[in-house]
Amino acid sequence: MAKELKDLTKRSENYSQWYNELVVKADLAEQSAVRGCMVIKPYGYAIWEKIQRQLDDMFKETGHVNAYFPLLIPKSFLSREAEHVEGFAKECAVVTHHRLKMSADGKEVVVDPAAKLEEELIIRPTSETIIWNTYKNWINSYRDLPILCNQWANVMRWEMRTRLFLRTSEFLWQEGHTAHATREEAEEEAIRMLNIYGDFAEQYMAVPVIKGVKSANERFAGAIDTYTIEAMMQDGKALQSGTSHFLGQNFAKAFDVQFVNKENKMEYVWATSWGVSTRLIGALIMAHSDDNGLVLPPHLAPIQVVVVPIYKNEEQLAQINEKVAGIVSSLKKLGISVKYDNSDNKRPGFKFADYELKGVPVRLVMGGRDLENNTMEVMRRDTLEKETISCEGIETYVQNLLEEIQANIYKKALDYRTSRTITVESYDEFKEKIEEGGFILAHWDGTPETEEKIKEETKATIRCIPLEGDKTPGKCMVTGKPSVCRVIFARAY
Amino acid sequence: MAKELKDLTKRSENYSQWYNELVVKADLAEQSAVRGCMVIKPYGYAIWEKIQRQLDDMFKETGHVNAYFPLLIPKSFLSREAEHVEGFAKECAVVTHHRLKMSADGKEVVVDPAAKLEEELIIRPTSETIIWNTYKNWINSYRDLPILCNQWANVMRWEMRTRLFLRTSEFLWQEGHTAHATREEAEEEAIRMLNIYGDFAEQYMAVPVIKGVKSANERFAGAIDTYTIEAMMQDGKALQSGTSHFLGQNFAKAFDVQFVNKENKMEYVWATSWGVSTRLIGALIMAHSDDNGLVLPPHLAPIQVVVVPIYKNEEQLAQINEKVAGIVSSLKKLGISVKYDNSDNKRPGFKFADYELKGVPVRLVMGGRDLENNTMEVMRRDTLEKETISCEGIETYVQNLLEEIQANIYKKALDYRTSRTITVESYDEFKEKIEEGGFILAHWDGTPETEEKIKEETKATIRCIPLEGDKTPGKCMVTGKPSVCRVIFARAY
Repeated sequence: MAKELKDLTKRSENYSQWYNELVVKADLAEQSAVRGCMVIKPYGYAIWEKIQRQLDDMFKETGHVNAYFPLLIPKSFLSREAEHVEGFAKECAVVTHHRLKMSADGKEVVVDPAAKLEEELIIRPTSETIIWNTYKNWINSYRDLPILCNQWANVMRWEMRTRLFLRTSEFLWQEGHTAHATREEAEEEAIRMLNIYGDFAEQYMAVPVIKGVKSANERFAGAIDTYTIEAMMQDGKALQSGTSHFLGQNFAKAFDVQFVNKENKMEYVWATSWGVSTRLIGALIMAHSDDNGLVLPPHLAPIQVVVVPIYKNEEQLAQINEKVAGIVSSLKKLGISVKYDNSDNKRPGFKFADYELKGVPVRLVMGGRDLENNTMEVMRRDTLEKETISCEGIETYVQNLLEEIQANIYKKALDYRTSRTITVESYDEFKEKIEEGGFILAHWDGTPETEEKIKEETKATIRCIPLEGDKTPGKCMVTGKPSVCRVIFARAY
Repeated sequence: MAKELKDLTKRSENYSQWYNELVVKADLAEQSAVRGCMVIKPYGYAIWEKIQRQLDDMFKETGHVNAYFPLLIPKSFLSREAEHVEGFAKECAVVTHHRLKMSADGKEVVVDPAAKLEEELIIRPTSETIIWNTYKNWINSYRDLPILCNQWANVMRWEMRTRLFLRTSEFLWQEGHTAHATREEAEEEAIRMLNIYGDFAEQYMAVPVIKGVKSANERFAGAIDTYTIEAMMQDGKALQSGTSHFLGQNFAKAFDVQFVNKENKMEYVWATSWGVSTRLIGALIMAHSDDNGLVLPPHLAPIQVVVVPIYKNEEQLAQINEKVAGIVSSLKKLGISVKYDNSDNKRPGFKFADYELKGVPVRLVMGGRDLENNTMEVMRRDTLEKETISCEGIETYVQNLLEEIQANIYKKALDYRTSRTITVESYDEFKEKIEEGGFILAHWDGTPETEEKIKEETKATIRCIPLEGDKTPGKCMVTGKPSVCRVIFARAY
């Protein structure tokens, strides 16, 4: 067994440590020399590329186009929208100078005080301000609307406590920013993108999510409504995995973006924004992986199938190479990404453990006896079950198996969530149950004060007011005041 | 004729102004609120996406993988490599603080002096330093080599004079950073990537390039050798379009990256880096476009074919819609990107001018008579020639025409370059001819002093010492000293 795997902490021992170790041991990412910023290693980045490609296709199918806006935002832009500045003009990276020079002793470079900027620039924590300042020049009439732009970019929020993928100072994301002529159209867009995120999470990440709307406390700074997809991790904690905001006319008013409507009257433009980030990789890992390493959903696995030969001598290897070549080529024709690992500097046992650690969904092994029998051993990563299968038609078998694994890990995550979602009636019961983790459906009076009190006393937050499900009214578990429907509480990442 | 087009300055009047106007009028990019930083608009970004996709495929075919390294670089890292710091630790964006707070009067946000960073961070102007600091942890033995990483990223160099795409403070690029066990392997890699850039420029951008090595004056700061592809624009000026650097062991020594080689001895790692940027879009525009607007090479055009109906009434439009639908669908099946523009708020003449401005390679028009005759009018953007073609087999005709246009604009650019490349024997002749622009092949004694003198007196620089072509030695046109071969001089962007 590979050393890396032997050392992996078990989830039951220390879930948090298991996660931190796994990200590093599976070669996904590591801390960099810059506080809170990560290096995304090739294997981790390959997952991000798969995520990007799929989401980008889904955005384009719904009429969106990509563009690119500046990394730096003039400080004064942040102040234009009153709530936005509260939310984002805090911990951020501030550029104050534009030149370095050699120090007097010639030993190092120092900031040139003569190169102080007139106005400081902020590395974008999100781009609503710079984009709406740009949209002002693009929009005159209802004929210029809608604008449906997305950008793939890096952003920076100076986080105090960081964890790889889950919370880093710099992260990669996409941010959609749309402009509409009517409130209805903007609200529809916000919901449309929420649904795309939901579909993506469930169909590609194999992570079931609850779609809902955030309470005022948890809303994006500057939004009228923030929609969210919330996933449950294997420790019962919630992970907010994507958000879509209906921004109303807030940014249009802040940047004076008006248009002539069909009735020939000036009106402020309606807006949405929506984003998902490299945090999704954290969600993937925490939702499915186990004590042997990553379990990747086939739809996003960089390598879907690994083929390993077991051989006694060069002659046998040559025979296996020949036999396997046809199968690898047929698998590739089916659009499956396959790696044939016949490297001779690692033993099969090491390779097995390594590909398990890396979460490759299907492993095929061909040994001497398989060669004679025209078979291969097939192992599926999700259950670790092995079967011996005839090489005749093995390509179709593997293709179907990949879909079965995809469905199975989704179902497993869904069953887990179901088993850890409960309903409580009293605050005492809530305080007891929240210690065990999971999602708790409870009645709440709709006030920020009650939410704040619950958060302070239990560390649980309202993850969302679900869009679907039971809408029976009741009484707040804390204050006894009327509640419109149950909301979902959880401790969250 | 569309207003935008009518207003376009002619190349012969003012080439520089023609370029600046065209970039904006064709909706490619615009200046942002942040000095020197551009907004890449959806149409311009669509070209960048095509460039990215193709280059990324070429990188992956040659064994490279993508990764992501931090945006910010500790100031001290820049000082580690003596020449690198000279080249890059000058005009750059310096992050000095990590927090904003409300001003005492509550009217604006100000930098919080309490949040001063211990060490300033620089927004990457290029990533050799942070990457080699990372590679230190990845490399122990020759078994860990080669490392063949690329990243797609934004970088920032605080430029004093900026022009959209050609020179902006922030730009998008890819930067490959490879690590090798031997000098030979690293040198081969640098040449391999130069050739990929050359192939891409010629086969996709339709821009002929001269491959060569830079003189010491023009070398990347920290490189042993800088290879370049140099293109000629329509004003006879050179545009450096991509560079590939053999870095020797300079960065390995600066960041102490050693490995145990096959002889079990410690050795410093050998390196390359290579990059192309959004500047390529500037090259595309300046190499091919004309007084009517953009001329895009079909291999990179976001819309390859536009179809416009001309109709008398709704009934006729319905008939054209039906007829065109089949053709559009067949073209798409051939992998051709087609837009059918039957929008009713613009007249055909406006559409024609607009798609000419946007450089769509092929325009198909169907009017009432075409409907009767089962024909369409085909216009090719490069020559503006029109033909009437039967709808039978028009898909194949268009497919072939796209390739013909691709080949034709390449040939046109190549013929132009050939006609404006001359050989001179004396410095007097050189000084006279350089005023007319173009590439001048001349002998040079190989010293930085002579190169500097020529630059000061004529504004011409050595673009490269060509890898191929005449290698006859001679005498320097300035000093009369021996010259190994002719080098290419030009005024450059």
